[in-house]
Amino acid sequence: MLTLRPIGHVRSALVDPADAPRQGDEGAPPARIVVDPPLRPALDGLAVGSDVLVLTWLHWARRDTLTTRPRDDPDRPELGVFATCSPHRPNPIGLHRTRILALDDAEILVEHLEAVDGTPVLDLKPVLGPTSER
Amino acid sequence: MLTLRPIGHVRSALVDPADAPRQGDEGAPPARIVVDPPLRPALDGLAVGSDVLVLTWLHWARRDTLTTRPRDDPDRPELGVFATCSPHRPNPIGLHRTRILALDDAEILVEHLEAVDGTPVLDLKPVLGPTSER
Repeated sequence: MLTLRPIGHVRSALVDPADAPRQGDEGAPPARIVVDPPLRPALDGLAVGSDVLVLTWLHWARRDTLTTRPRDDPDRPELGVFATCSPHRPNPIGLHRTRILALDDAEILVEHLEAVDGTPVLDLKPVLGPTSER
Repeated sequence: MLTLRPIGHVRSALVDPADAPRQGDEGAPPARIVVDPPLRPALDGLAVGSDVLVLTWLHWARRDTLTTRPRDDPDRPELGVFATCSPHRPNPIGLHRTRILALDDAEILVEHLEAVDGTPVLDLKPVLGPTSER
């Protein structure tokens, strides 16, 4: 069995998944990522203005859903969840691209995040540029 | 505790992490993703030629590493792992962008993948286009 240990949590004005936009760039509010203090050294090098990928655990999602209609649109055909961005999937890992607005010790303010308050955060990754800049 | 259930595994000619390129677009070979048969319906809608994000569990990585030198380059400063793409991180989730070359029942051939043979696969997600195409 593979076990995840959250690195922190989301603090957001969004509390109900029903109120969350489908993607961060579709009107999600700014949010704070509160990282567990012992992991503070792992943040060194993150900078205000940088784009970042935030991986979350969508704890309210269903894990037994295999097919869905994208965007709950009844006019669209049912698709497998791996062909969609539905939160409901065997491992409900959320992937969010956003931008760092502020950094203060082990707290990161990001531009937009469609994850609700209390969502466990699993990882942060830089957005890769061209190979020459890696 | 959050528990992952692999949705399948990587089958690849790469067997030693030391031989793996740092990113898929830096010379990684094609690979097969063998999905567990009960999850077959979750693949409906994936198509040959589509770009796809593959999330993996880098099972050989260290989880207690908090800082590292990018690309193991001694001339570069030590950075926190969340500012790098190091596989060594608290939750060693690999994120790979690749393209589907062939689909056969519950097996997917992808263009390039820097994960070694036997790597657990956690999730597949489409690459999002502009909001108008979602």
